[in-house]
Amino acid sequence: MSDQYIPSPQDKFSFGLWTVSNRGRDPFGDVVRPVLAPVDAVKMLAEVGAWGVNLHDNDLVPIDSTSCERDKIVREFKQACEENRIVVPMATVNLFYDPAFRDGAFTANDPDVRAYALQKTMRAMDLGAELGAKIFVLWGGREGTETDACRRADVAVKRLRDAVDFLCEYSLDRKYGFRFALEAKPNEPRGDIYMATTAAYLGLIPTLAHPEMVGVNPEVAHEQMAGLNFMHAIAQAWEVGKLFHIDLNDQMPGRYDQDFRFGAANPRAAFFIVKFLEDVGYDGSRHFDAHAYRTEDYCGVKDFARGCMRTYLILKERAARWNADAEIQALVQETGHKKTPYSAENRDALLNRNFDRVALASKGLAYERLDQLTTEVLLGVR
Amino acid sequence: MSDQYIPSPQDKFSFGLWTVSNRGRDPFGDVVRPVLAPVDAVKMLAEVGAWGVNLHDNDLVPIDSTSCERDKIVREFKQACEENRIVVPMATVNLFYDPAFRDGAFTANDPDVRAYALQKTMRAMDLGAELGAKIFVLWGGREGTETDACRRADVAVKRLRDAVDFLCEYSLDRKYGFRFALEAKPNEPRGDIYMATTAAYLGLIPTLAHPEMVGVNPEVAHEQMAGLNFMHAIAQAWEVGKLFHIDLNDQMPGRYDQDFRFGAANPRAAFFIVKFLEDVGYDGSRHFDAHAYRTEDYCGVKDFARGCMRTYLILKERAARWNADAEIQALVQETGHKKTPYSAENRDALLNRNFDRVALASKGLAYERLDQLTTEVLLGVR
Amino acid sequence: MSDQYIPSPQDKFSFGLWTVSNRGRDPFGDVVRPVLAPVDAVKMLAEVGAWGVNLHDNDLVPIDSTSCERDKIVREFKQACEENRIVVPMATVNLFYDPAFRDGAFTANDPDVRAYALQKTMRAMDLGAELGAKIFVLWGGREGTETDACRRADVAVKRLRDAVDFLCEYSLDRKYGFRFALEAKPNEPRGDIYMATTAAYLGLIPTLAHPEMVGVNPEVAHEQMAGLNFMHAIAQAWEVGKLFHIDLNDQMPGRYDQDFRFGAANPRAAFFIVKFLEDVGYDGSRHFDAHAYRTEDYCGVKDFARGCMRTYLILKERAARWNADAEIQALVQETGHKKTPYSAENRDALLNRNFDRVALASKGLAYERLDQLTTEVLLGVR
Amino acid sequence: MSDQYIPSPQDKFSFGLWTVSNRGRDPFGDVVRPVLAPVDAVKMLAEVGAWGVNLHDNDLVPIDSTSCERDKIVREFKQACEENRIVVPMATVNLFYDPAFRDGAFTANDPDVRAYALQKTMRAMDLGAELGAKIFVLWGGREGTETDACRRADVAVKRLRDAVDFLCEYSLDRKYGFRFALEAKPNEPRGDIYMATTAAYLGLIPTLAHPEMVGVNPEVAHEQMAGLNFMHAIAQAWEVGKLFHIDLNDQMPGRYDQDFRFGAANPRAAFFIVKFLEDVGYDGSRHFDAHAYRTEDYCGVKDFARGCMRTYLILKERAARWNADAEIQALVQETGHKKTPYSAENRDALLNRNFDRVALASKGLAYERLDQLTTEVLLGVR
Repeated sequence: MSDQYIPSPQDKFSFGLWTVSNRGRDPFGDVVRPVLAPVDAVKMLAEVGAWGVNLHDNDLVPIDSTSCERDKIVREFKQACEENRIVVPMATVNLFYDPAFRDGAFTANDPDVRAYALQKTMRAMDLGAELGAKIFVLWGGREGTETDACRRADVAVKRLRDAVDFLCEYSLDRKYGFRFALEAKPNEPRGDIYMATTAAYLGLIPTLAHPEMVGVNPEVAHEQMAGLNFMHAIAQAWEVGKLFHIDLNDQMPGRYDQDFRFGAANPRAAFFIVKFLEDVGYDGSRHFDAHAYRTEDYCGVKDFARGCMRTYLILKERAARWNADAEIQALVQETGHKKTPYSAENRDALLNRNFDRVALASKGLAYERLDQLTTEVLLGVR
Repeated sequence: MSDQYIPSPQDKFSFGLWTVSNRGRDPFGDVVRPVLAPVDAVKMLAEVGAWGVNLHDNDLVPIDSTSCERDKIVREFKQACEENRIVVPMATVNLFYDPAFRDGAFTANDPDVRAYALQKTMRAMDLGAELGAKIFVLWGGREGTETDACRRADVAVKRLRDAVDFLCEYSLDRKYGFRFALEAKPNEPRGDIYMATTAAYLGLIPTLAHPEMVGVNPEVAHEQMAGLNFMHAIAQAWEVGKLFHIDLNDQMPGRYDQDFRFGAANPRAAFFIVKFLEDVGYDGSRHFDAHAYRTEDYCGVKDFARGCMRTYLILKERAARWNADAEIQALVQETGHKKTPYSAENRDALLNRNFDRVALASKGLAYERLDQLTTEVLLGVR
Repeated sequence: MSDQYIPSPQDKFSFGLWTVSNRGRDPFGDVVRPVLAPVDAVKMLAEVGAWGVNLHDNDLVPIDSTSCERDKIVREFKQACEENRIVVPMATVNLFYDPAFRDGAFTANDPDVRAYALQKTMRAMDLGAELGAKIFVLWGGREGTETDACRRADVAVKRLRDAVDFLCEYSLDRKYGFRFALEAKPNEPRGDIYMATTAAYLGLIPTLAHPEMVGVNPEVAHEQMAGLNFMHAIAQAWEVGKLFHIDLNDQMPGRYDQDFRFGAANPRAAFFIVKFLEDVGYDGSRHFDAHAYRTEDYCGVKDFARGCMRTYLILKERAARWNADAEIQALVQETGHKKTPYSAENRDALLNRNFDRVALASKGLAYERLDQLTTEVLLGVR
Repeated sequence: MSDQYIPSPQDKFSFGLWTVSNRGRDPFGDVVRPVLAPVDAVKMLAEVGAWGVNLHDNDLVPIDSTSCERDKIVREFKQACEENRIVVPMATVNLFYDPAFRDGAFTANDPDVRAYALQKTMRAMDLGAELGAKIFVLWGGREGTETDACRRADVAVKRLRDAVDFLCEYSLDRKYGFRFALEAKPNEPRGDIYMATTAAYLGLIPTLAHPEMVGVNPEVAHEQMAGLNFMHAIAQAWEVGKLFHIDLNDQMPGRYDQDFRFGAANPRAAFFIVKFLEDVGYDGSRHFDAHAYRTEDYCGVKDFARGCMRTYLILKERAARWNADAEIQALVQETGHKKTPYSAENRDALLNRNFDRVALASKGLAYERLDQLTTEVLLGVR
């Protein structure tokens, strides 16, 4: 029954190195799993059927490594990737773990911290390029405040823009060919994070020096933390050509960042996400930015990783079934959009038209039935 | 002690006609106050010291009015405004009350509803122009879903863009000189509303045919419903020149739309909002989109309106005191932004620089003290 | 495939008269459906396969009815119930719609309002008893505040206790045999409602004069509005013998009261609710306190009502499948609870025991696999 | 101006050892402050003017200490407390940090973990008693789930009751005289925590073997995470005599556990909390369970601790001013509660009384004015 849900490279399933290697530390408890070396994580990903691995600079290369150590680590990692047929589609930079970034990186008040953040990112870009990544993600986890007394919020926006502009130039200069994907989050680890939603980056991007190089990396949990509809967020990004990457996981609204297995909190919301991605033909990575419960050993981590991909494939099959369901299609009353160009004639025609408000209001739209049928497709009873 | 908190026209305090006339109906209860006629609302606003009144088309002109009735109503209203020295800085259109809009207006699946919404908005623009309004607000309260099975979310974005483009042309055509201010909300009355945050509109605007004519109208309650930092939202809008209007009120996060008196839910958040507006020199309306509790008669409605303005003025005075506080200023470590232009030289200087991470991380930033002093300014003990 | 999901009287599915008759008014829009007379609602419920109908006093009898009108209405309603084989398992009182209750009913500051609320409830109990109801629900929708300046919150608790004590005596006096089920909600229509959660009532009940007569009526949406786990709430109520009634519907966390069709927001959460009720053998009503979208005519209302029951039955079948799944059962590591009675011997044995913390921490619990299998049972792929 | 806000022992201000010693680790970042030894924390608390220090067993005694090491640590700590005139009013047990508790402590599925949790708590009680503590707090931070497939939620309640019953016996047996204070939290570090709210414990306590020994320890942040009104929660606890202890801090609703300085997120909510505690004459510890921002060094930690106490004292003074304000008092329309005893006479009098609903509904309650005056007292302009 389930053979159709086996992942293949065409599915473009990727995991962060930090996800399967997550050791389960949380604010109230210590690590629960031993270290998993990057090359072993790559083996595990190959074993469970993933296609790609993504990484922050320091997921692979410790922050204090010498250049010589770094090169050895990278060489061995590339070899492990090749042996295991795992690609590195995306790289990113850790600008949040080191205490130097406790008040932000690109937006920190200390100009030395801002400069260090730029330098660290350039080096992470070097690393990403060396590993073949074409997408470079920027998540400003520390770009925020606990007290708004510390900084003008509009100054923070300017600093952020300056940083992204500089890094675009660096990518062009080095001919890395990166497309940047900016990742939003409303809060945690800061009281409030600037650029709280994916849409905030959609507002920033057109003001950059190289808007064409920059898109977004929406994360399910990050929008759902604020109780927002994630599918709507990616739809807006897609519609303006900016859905460069995606972070799939799950999250109950109004809570700490849970990073649950994809589909584990609300499979219905996950269904609409998968359906949207498949319907529009999104062809980027399906990246899982999640981690296993702290109750798990590394067997459980594999269960977790397999579950992410398997649930995606189940939902993809359900989306196809939904599209093929005649009764559902008959209920979908959507009629696209037909732009009425503005002209004196169209203006007057519209102004002079008589509308029967009562008639417009009286037709049942059968959305309860449509939604119930959707539930039934999701639950596998039709 | 409090004479300094008397509103004046220079403060540009405005109220929606619908705010002081709100009759207190809610989902679980009936109206609690009698009808307040628009001309009486204008008198009340003058009495409490407001500068302006804003309105939806049907706040003033019932939806079924004849042309003749409409003209009489408008004439009397204009006269009342003149007599009471009340201006009409903003107008808007009601695209949510009539059952015709139960599945949206500009984004509805029924093309006749979309056409009717355009027509109704054009007429509301005529009305607004006649009353002297220069800002036209669009709040898409019904543009959303209870089930995402009903419509592709990216199609909704396209429909919305088409509508705004058409209306910009109409304003140009009629020489109304409107600047449009788009107002976001995450949910209620729809399960999810498209364009959930102010930032979503900042992402849409650059894709419009006339981006220069269109900005945003952020509302405190609408961002705070999703637990977002409102001041950060207006700072991003301001920074890109798009803060065309503002809706001030208050709201506890994660709840129904409360529309409380400004400052009534969290005076600290209100302080940072006022401080931002005053610091940057925002010179638009300070519009209160709130309403009195259901426990109030019209005396209480006046208390409510006076309270909105008075709290704004108290917080404005506190912001000035904060700016003048030497100890606070000494703690503010912000250093603006200094853009490093990209060049081979700057690149190499940055890459070759040695950063002492431990030093960067070890300096206490004294934000606890800064924030405590802010609290004490707010509470009036310094 | 779906014949197994046809409701039967044994399922004890009931609907509030106010649910199928809901006309779709909301804070931003007018009614969208015509009046549905109570007798017609009963017919509709019979047609869709429901077993029972519940009601507030004024759902059936308008608040201004004469005694004579009331009796006629009740007589015709009883006849309609009999003809349609619909029972009235629960009755309740509307203490929220009339403006008299704008500052609360049992907790209002005005003692006349408190007295009127008691009188109105006694008459609603008379009505409920006449209709054969055995459960009487009390939902204190207006018992709360917008400003805590208005009343001491502990005084509100005392007033509430006094009212419930009085009403218990009335039931005993009249030999109505009611069991009272108290229903909590965190907010809406008040800024904050006292007794915000089901658990708050579990704390109140032991302090009543007749605790044995009083239990709770948890509502899915009301707990989920606050982001709480509804199943945990009913489990605590069940464990102390206080789950007298239940209100099933659905709701996204952190929003206005949505009252969606059961299972429509998060079928996974709904699964755990159904599983709990069926596992413990709850034998009360499965009452749906929800309403159809505003997009629906009365055909859509029937779809809505059918969908509530059908989803319940699908999830019930999935719960049985989960219980019968050998792989799942092997993973469930629960071992009940074995109380160690306190004694000097047990004390010393426990204090002297050596625990190997590392061993306790090192065993993988396979909850990721367990949860993924649960997802797959839910989605119908095993 | 501010001399009146100096803390004194009569204020009973206490801090957890873990609060001022917090090193600033979070889910996305490493520690930012060096170790602060317990004796140095005691000195710091004395320096800033605190009265008491509270502790988990392992805040003071490392989990792997030998009996000999433990005794030395405790001896030195007691000496430091005496020298610095700091008392230990409350002790608690850490049942969340060690990986052994990753699936719960008293409610874990593994009976050995449950037994170990009991043993560890008994030893923590020994320690607390030795230090003179009279309150013993139990926070079940790990008592919860990420997937409800793992355990019946009602079984968890039974396990928890068994544990508390056992520990009450131990306190009686050893003549420790402890009063237990149970602390709730809705989520984090678990997906959902059982006993999500203070009220859940108010529901549990009456079912214990020794209910008189057990009360609650409500924490501001923990209720506010779920968007609940904290003052209402402590009012209910107080009204039933169960407010044994309190954890003061601050928190924005719908987010990760922020543990901000008291009053830092919403001074208005903090005002109503302080006002309630002072009005009812709560005479327990005012315990601050918060920590300094990560931007701070230990100077900043002192600012943080001083700020908690100072804000409390400012708000206490404002509460007194509110109580003394004649205009405010004239507006407070509260009339206590007057219980009508049930009798045939009272019943009939009530049933026969005629109420004028329109009159009941028409009187303005002036709560807008009352609330505005409250804001002005809070902000220090009256």
